[in-house]
Amino acid sequence: MSAYKAPLNDMQFTLHDLLDSDAHYASLNSPESLTPDLLKAVLDNMAQFSEEVLAPLNQSGDDEGCEWSPEGVTTPAGFKEAYTQYVEGGWPGLAVDSAIGGQGLPPSIGFYADEMVGTSNWSWSMYPGLSRASVRLISEDGTDEQKRLYLGKIVEGTWTGTMCLTEAHCGSDVGLLKTKAAPNTDGSYSITGTKIFISAGEHDMAENIIHLVLARLPGAPDGTKGISLFIVPKFDVNEDGSLGERNAVQCGSIEKKMGINASVTAVLNFDGARGYLIGKENEGINSMFIMMNAARVGTAMQGLCMGEAALQSSVEYAQERLQMRALTGPKNPDGPADPIIVHPDVRRMLLTQKSLVEGSRAFLYWLIMQVDKDSYGDEEQRSDADIALALLTPVAKAFVTEVGLESANLGLQCFGGHGYIKEHGVEQIVRDARIATVYEGTTGIQALDFIGRKVLGTGGESLKSFTRVVNKYCKSQQDNAGVADMVTRLQELLEEWGELTMVIGAGAMENPDEAGAASVDYLMYSGYIVLAWFWLQMAEVSQRKLAAGEGDARLYTAKVQTAQFYFDRVLPRTLSHAASIRAGAASTMAMEAENFYLG
Amino acid sequence: MSAYKAPLNDMQFTLHDLLDSDAHYASLNSPESLTPDLLKAVLDNMAQFSEEVLAPLNQSGDDEGCEWSPEGVTTPAGFKEAYTQYVEGGWPGLAVDSAIGGQGLPPSIGFYADEMVGTSNWSWSMYPGLSRASVRLISEDGTDEQKRLYLGKIVEGTWTGTMCLTEAHCGSDVGLLKTKAAPNTDGSYSITGTKIFISAGEHDMAENIIHLVLARLPGAPDGTKGISLFIVPKFDVNEDGSLGERNAVQCGSIEKKMGINASVTAVLNFDGARGYLIGKENEGINSMFIMMNAARVGTAMQGLCMGEAALQSSVEYAQERLQMRALTGPKNPDGPADPIIVHPDVRRMLLTQKSLVEGSRAFLYWLIMQVDKDSYGDEEQRSDADIALALLTPVAKAFVTEVGLESANLGLQCFGGHGYIKEHGVEQIVRDARIATVYEGTTGIQALDFIGRKVLGTGGESLKSFTRVVNKYCKSQQDNAGVADMVTRLQELLEEWGELTMVIGAGAMENPDEAGAASVDYLMYSGYIVLAWFWLQMAEVSQRKLAAGEGDARLYTAKVQTAQFYFDRVLPRTLSHAASIRAGAASTMAMEAENFYLG
Repeated sequence: MSAYKAPLNDMQFTLHDLLDSDAHYASLNSPESLTPDLLKAVLDNMAQFSEEVLAPLNQSGDDEGCEWSPEGVTTPAGFKEAYTQYVEGGWPGLAVDSAIGGQGLPPSIGFYADEMVGTSNWSWSMYPGLSRASVRLISEDGTDEQKRLYLGKIVEGTWTGTMCLTEAHCGSDVGLLKTKAAPNTDGSYSITGTKIFISAGEHDMAENIIHLVLARLPGAPDGTKGISLFIVPKFDVNEDGSLGERNAVQCGSIEKKMGINASVTAVLNFDGARGYLIGKENEGINSMFIMMNAARVGTAMQGLCMGEAALQSSVEYAQERLQMRALTGPKNPDGPADPIIVHPDVRRMLLTQKSLVEGSRAFLYWLIMQVDKDSYGDEEQRSDADIALALLTPVAKAFVTEVGLESANLGLQCFGGHGYIKEHGVEQIVRDARIATVYEGTTGIQALDFIGRKVLGTGGESLKSFTRVVNKYCKSQQDNAGVADMVTRLQELLEEWGELTMVIGAGAMENPDEAGAASVDYLMYSGYIVLAWFWLQMAEVSQRKLAAGEGDARLYTAKVQTAQFYFDRVLPRTLSHAASIRAGAASTMAMEAENFYLG
Repeated sequence: MSAYKAPLNDMQFTLHDLLDSDAHYASLNSPESLTPDLLKAVLDNMAQFSEEVLAPLNQSGDDEGCEWSPEGVTTPAGFKEAYTQYVEGGWPGLAVDSAIGGQGLPPSIGFYADEMVGTSNWSWSMYPGLSRASVRLISEDGTDEQKRLYLGKIVEGTWTGTMCLTEAHCGSDVGLLKTKAAPNTDGSYSITGTKIFISAGEHDMAENIIHLVLARLPGAPDGTKGISLFIVPKFDVNEDGSLGERNAVQCGSIEKKMGINASVTAVLNFDGARGYLIGKENEGINSMFIMMNAARVGTAMQGLCMGEAALQSSVEYAQERLQMRALTGPKNPDGPADPIIVHPDVRRMLLTQKSLVEGSRAFLYWLIMQVDKDSYGDEEQRSDADIALALLTPVAKAFVTEVGLESANLGLQCFGGHGYIKEHGVEQIVRDARIATVYEGTTGIQALDFIGRKVLGTGGESLKSFTRVVNKYCKSQQDNAGVADMVTRLQELLEEWGELTMVIGAGAMENPDEAGAASVDYLMYSGYIVLAWFWLQMAEVSQRKLAAGEGDARLYTAKVQTAQFYFDRVLPRTLSHAASIRAGAASTMAMEAENFYLG
């Protein structure tokens, strides 16, 4: 298995050259300012931790998996120790508000660090990862007393958090949930029910686990309007913050999964467990949505992580593996054969990976900077950021995880038969990546949110405000001969994007299935355009740097070449998505449900 | 996990309605004729065996895997017993020439039976599957003595066979192999070397294993022109056919893989093992190609099998799983939610699976009937069949396995989070399917064979002879209003297919990388057109049956609807493949090999 190396060069390119991170961070009013030196120090430190501590546990963690017993769950060897180091390093509170014990740096810095954590060991990253959403939720909706009791310990990492939504009969349709909350005389509640698919739901890495649990109060309305949210600690917490009684929540079993084997997926039985209402009665779903939105960007990142891991592996393998001669004559005449990177189809696979991975990094870093603005920007920054975030979060989650899975699969394909063998580690990347298009809202759910709530739900205004930004950039580059063809192509697509949106919108007014049938094609179509915008910008800035003779010419040249490949050979996928959208819903909806399979 | 049901209705539709199997079998001069009654009896019997014996061992086989010890390999519980039943049922010799102990039925009947075996339990199917190629090779190239000694036992299933090509440093590039064959004084050879990735290379299901091993004689030329083929039995065989000494071939270890865990993948150490030359010195590669060509159609079938298994699972799940309401209002008002098959995007996934799976079945059954003609047809039949087989075998192998993997992944996606859990079995389908685009020649290798040897290598003549057949059919349906739009679209594509071929051919004359860079897009593009031809025919025959009021109207209606969906929403993929081809090789070849990853 190839060792993980943090992609610091590409991260720095994306931050400095593409997104002008110095200006971005200087414009924010965060409690602590992220100077260029501090940014570099944080990235370098996390690179080292990821490469030296987390990456070596990735394959062994997959082999061992988690072990369940009635007493609890044991994580794979080394996981607990790595977590202790992570906590001692102060990582959990890096991008958390200093008012609640964090270091007060903007959210984006946490994201860059998380990318390295996630690529080196996605399973491990789930344990601290789940805590982040709890911190956000408790700090937004909790009482002062709840903040005092729970937040500090989670922020410092002594305790971890979970989100408990899913039950056996309800996943996407959370309104069907049945877990009950009965009021106790002391103001607390007794929570009873079974939750499934709870990541980090039980483990041995932290002293306590704070579950955030959706449940129904007696007499609550049906559906999502009757759901309340409760804090249910594994160990009850005394007034002084010390651990009290073991609560009546037990891990009944853990799932055997296709991948992310070292990340525990728990069945949690709440048997009259003591819980504390957080937020208002029957309004739990709103709080949960806040948490889920934040989690979606983090899950989008899994696509980037798995894509990056596969890219590193397959490029290294393709440079070393000798097999056959180049079609144009030997490139390694002294060896028994040429490295397979000489073969056009291997290059096609690698460049597809590279363009998707680096394009996704640009997209997600830009998106997380909108979160920075939303947290610490001025009013205008906040308003623009809000619109962009609402619009593009579902695209990021669905598109980046889909193309990340594709990159993982292409990585395996480059290895040939060796890719299918566990030893090389690339098959683990495919298995780990496979969950990303499913959890935190499947691709289909994101696509419905995108076309329904975000695009059509705003009368197309959100989309227009985004395409205005892209159009403006295109116009600014119209006379730049180096990128002229890309600009023209992107402008054509922006126009078609608007047209297709109207086609779907008009159809949906007659029949809502028109939106549903087009949704995933429309989301993927949109994602390819978003990436085209970032590749155009990357090509433009790289050409500028090359012309100025600044920086690493190899990297800038590779960026220009990858951009060209993306426009030539990946972006044409919009053609088939557009045609599939234009075909309408009729043939998708025609068949009787019972005739889909007739034996 | 949903139980496997053999798709007898769809098989019968494909055979009788689409391919007129009665006429086909009546036209052949096979030793035994396959009457409609016999065909039905064979299918029914294999359906029962697959459903009742093999399917129940599929998930347990994956869990257990194979176990290695210095004494040999133990297959999962029940595998050996199932194999004994299979042998007792006479299945190994079903489609083998009666002159060498088989039942003398045409090859296609073996293929239909194999489809059921493979869908119910792909790992298990590898054990008898590997024998088939050995039978073919020994019967074509073996001496009378070799046929007498080995063939009978393999045909009856008492022994199994293997193909030993791959070594650690050579897979696709078999010319690099190093295994040595030193002549002994008695006419036999001593074989020394290590082979990897040997399916069914060691197991406990049969009394003996007959390895067919590629090795080099002393002084043999380098590359593929210095490779000879040897029979190396696990137990040497005495003159009277009884088992002799244990030969010096040992299974050193078995691979841990992503999937097909119950299929053993052996490292075989030949340590001066006794081998017998088969065929001529230094011409082993030709024999091996015969074997590999036959194996490619069998591996194509894995795409069909995995796609079918996923389709069965996801349709059943989508019909039962209740989650959210239809966008157009409740379809299951008395239940807590609607079955997810009401949702347009779930339908899109299921219909994509269905159109790819049933289209692949039509394509492969047609292709295997060409093998029938090649074996038992008259001269004209043989010549046409030869051309079609040479041209379309690489398309079948690569395209059907790629879309089979897609169907497997879509099946998992329909299950949401439950699809990622081992319990439901659909994640196993994805893991098992993942090898199919890799072994027996990767998609990239097939694509090079297709564009290079088969299309450009015949000056485009092979392709023209195929498109003539399709064009003729299109013309015959020009006035058929029910399929007019499909006919028009297919005719346009046939024209573009020719055009693109010329574009690539012209480019390749200047620079062979133009063919390599276009190869996979070109193969996939071609595959979608081939499937369009079959969907057009399925729509046409179904409309005819509906008009005549014959047969099961539900099935014919579903066929017409699926054809429309395929033309509307799957076939447009040709657009992006065509654009990617037209972009040429420049951006694929531009980057320096060392700049693909710069950290």
